[in-house]
Amino acid sequence: MDYSTLFSDDVASFMPSPAREIFKKVDLNSIYSLAGGYPDSATFPTDILKDLFSRVMDKYGAKALQYGGTQGVPELRKAVAERYSVNEENVLISTSSQQGIDVSARILLNPGDVVLTVDPTYLGALQSFKSYRAEIVSVQGLKDGMTGVDESILKRAKLFYIISDFQNPSGKTLSLEERMDLIGLSKKYGFLILEDGPYRELRYSGQTLPTIYSLAPERTIHLGSFSKIFAPGLRLGWILAPQEVLHQIYVCKQALDLCPPILNQYMAAEFLESGELDRNLEKSIALYRDKRDFMLSLLEKYMPQGVSWTRPEGGLFLFLTLPQELDCVQMYDKALDAGVAYVAGSFFYADGSHRNTMRLNFSFMNKPRMEQGVKILSEVIRSYLG
Amino acid sequence: MDYSTLFSDDVASFMPSPAREIFKKVDLNSIYSLAGGYPDSATFPTDILKDLFSRVMDKYGAKALQYGGTQGVPELRKAVAERYSVNEENVLISTSSQQGIDVSARILLNPGDVVLTVDPTYLGALQSFKSYRAEIVSVQGLKDGMTGVDESILKRAKLFYIISDFQNPSGKTLSLEERMDLIGLSKKYGFLILEDGPYRELRYSGQTLPTIYSLAPERTIHLGSFSKIFAPGLRLGWILAPQEVLHQIYVCKQALDLCPPILNQYMAAEFLESGELDRNLEKSIALYRDKRDFMLSLLEKYMPQGVSWTRPEGGLFLFLTLPQELDCVQMYDKALDAGVAYVAGSFFYADGSHRNTMRLNFSFMNKPRMEQGVKILSEVIRSYLG
Repeated sequence: MDYSTLFSDDVASFMPSPAREIFKKVDLNSIYSLAGGYPDSATFPTDILKDLFSRVMDKYGAKALQYGGTQGVPELRKAVAERYSVNEENVLISTSSQQGIDVSARILLNPGDVVLTVDPTYLGALQSFKSYRAEIVSVQGLKDGMTGVDESILKRAKLFYIISDFQNPSGKTLSLEERMDLIGLSKKYGFLILEDGPYRELRYSGQTLPTIYSLAPERTIHLGSFSKIFAPGLRLGWILAPQEVLHQIYVCKQALDLCPPILNQYMAAEFLESGELDRNLEKSIALYRDKRDFMLSLLEKYMPQGVSWTRPEGGLFLFLTLPQELDCVQMYDKALDAGVAYVAGSFFYADGSHRNTMRLNFSFMNKPRMEQGVKILSEVIRSYLG
Repeated sequence: MDYSTLFSDDVASFMPSPAREIFKKVDLNSIYSLAGGYPDSATFPTDILKDLFSRVMDKYGAKALQYGGTQGVPELRKAVAERYSVNEENVLISTSSQQGIDVSARILLNPGDVVLTVDPTYLGALQSFKSYRAEIVSVQGLKDGMTGVDESILKRAKLFYIISDFQNPSGKTLSLEERMDLIGLSKKYGFLILEDGPYRELRYSGQTLPTIYSLAPERTIHLGSFSKIFAPGLRLGWILAPQEVLHQIYVCKQALDLCPPILNQYMAAEFLESGELDRNLEKSIALYRDKRDFMLSLLEKYMPQGVSWTRPEGGLFLFLTLPQELDCVQMYDKALDAGVAYVAGSFFYADGSHRNTMRLNFSFMNKPRMEQGVKILSEVIRSYLG
C-alpha cells in the first residue's frame, strides 16, 4: 500500500534528530560518547527514590494513579510557583519541556510564519518549528539590534526562541544587556519570546542573571525542566506564560495527552517540598563543575592548534570550532570507528552551515572515559589536519 | 498586550473538553459523578505497587531515570508485541493513547481533509481532529455501506476513526460483519482506519472479536492504553501501525516529547511480564461486570418511561436517550445543583445534535453512591417531564 499520498503536508518538513539516530545505532556504553545531552546518572537521587516513592503512595494513594487536571496537580504547580516567585495561575506542568516547545509552536505558528533564533541553537526546537513549516531566521547578535535581518522579516516574526543560560549547543549565556535588548525588540516588532531554561539551575561559575520571563512576563513563555534537576526519565517540565497564552496552551494540551503523568508529578512535588531537590542539586553542581573544568583541561592538553572552544558557566555542553577546511559531518564515521561520538555543529544551524564545528557534552561520562574520548577525538582531528 | 493576532489559525478550532471543564469546577468527591471516564481506583494495584517499584529500581537502577528511545523501552515494546501477537517493529509506546490520536492526526491531516467517524464518538478525538481543522463527517451505519455520505466526501477521506469495542460514549461494539465492511470501504476509498481500543480488555459478557488491526494490519493504526488495565496516572499507551506509518509517527514524536516516561514504562513492563497485570485484570473485570449489571438494574428501577439506554458488553459507559423534547445541555445545571453530574450526549456528536442524550459512567463510583446518583438523576429528568 502506498501511504505517501495520505500523509499531511507537515510530514515533508519532519526532520529526524541526528543525535537521536546515533543512539538508535550505537550502544552508549560501548563507545566514548561526547554526543547526547544525558545527565550523569550519579546525579539521580536513586538512593532516596524508594523512600520518596513510599512517601508519595502513603500521602496520595490511589490519587497518584488516577487521571488529573490538564494544568498539572495543584501541589506541583504550587511548588514551582513558590520556587520561581510566580503566580500559580501562570504555571502549567508539561510532559517534558520538549512538549513546551511543541505546544508553543502549535498555538502560534502557521506555515510560513517567521521564528527568530540565534545561530546555532537547540536541534529539538528547530525540529519542532520546521515541522510546523515555519521559516526559521537566525540573527547574528542581539547587542547591535539583530544586524543582518531584514526589517520586513522582523515584522513577520511571531516568536524568538532563545536558551538564555548555558545554551545548547554553544554553552553561551546572554548578558543582562542582551536580555534587555531582546525584550526591546520584542516590544518594537510585536513577537513573543520563547525562553527555554532547561539548564538554568546548573550554574558552576559567574553571576546568576534574571530570566527574560521575570523581566518581561507579558512578552515571554518560559520553559522549565525537571530533567536536569531531578530525572529525565520522569518527563516533566513546566511552562510559565501570560494567562491568555497559557489558556490556549491548556486547551491544546487537553487534546495532546489530557494531563502529565500524575505519579511523576507527585514525586517531583515531594522532592521539591522536602528540600531534597536542593540538597541533590548542590551535589550535582559540584560534580558538573568539576567535570566542566576537567573537560576544559583535557581540551587544552590534547587538542591541536587551530581548534577553539567555548567556556560555559553552566549547563552540559561546550562548542568546538575546528579549522575552516575540516568537515565534522564527514569526520563523524571515522570518529565512531575510532570509538568516540559527538554531534556535528552544523545540525544546530538552521541552514546546516558551519560544518567545521561540533558540540561536546561533559556531563555524561566519568572522568577517565572523558579523557579517553577527548584523546581519541583529538587524534581523529589531527589525522585530518594532515 | 493583545495576543490574538499572534495565535495560529488552528487555535480558533480548539475546543475545550466540556467533561474536563466540569472537573475543573467541581470536586468529584463532593457530587455523585456519572460524568468522566475515571476507572474505579479499587482496580489500581496499589497493594503491590511499592514492591513493583522496588523491583524496577533493583533491576534497572539509574536507567529507569535516564532518557530513552523515542519508540519506547525494548522491554515494554516486547511485552506488548507478545501480548497482542504483533511484531516489535510495529509497536511504538505512546505517552497516553490520547497522544496516539493526536500524532496520527498530525501526520495525516491537512486543514479541510475529511475524517470519517460514527455518531456519537469520543470527544477527545473530535477535539484533536477539529484542532487540525479537519472536516468531520459522521456515517449513519457501517452495515449498509455508510448510507447518507456523499461519494465525493468518501473519496476525500484520509481516516476513519472508530472505537471498535464498547465505544465511548455509546457502549456499542462493532460486529465482525461491520469490521469487515469497514475494511472493505477502506480498500475501496483508500482511507486508513484509526482503531482506538482503550477498553478492549474490559469485556464483561459476549464473545471477543478480532481487532480491525489484526484483520487488516496494512490499513489500520491501532491505539492501546494502559489507563484501564494498569493506571491512567502513568500516561502510557501503545500504537500498532504499518512500519512506514509508524516511522512518521516516530519522527513526529521526537519533536513532541522525545520519549515516553521511562520509569513508568519499566513499571508497566514489569507489571505485564510478572503476570500481575492479568491477575489484576481478572479482578477488575469481575468488579466492573457487577457494577454494569447494578447500573442496568438501577436504570430499570428508577428511570421514567420514555428513557432508553444501551447495554454494553464491556467498557465504562452506557448511553441514555431521553424523550425528544428534553435538553440534557440545559438540564445540566439543575442536575449539578441536585448533586449529580453526567456528560451531555450532544458533546459527542460532531454537529452538537442529539441534545436529548447523555453518557453515564458506571466505573467510578461505588454502588451506594451510584444508586444515589441514578436516583437523583431520574428525579431531575422526571421534573422536566412535567
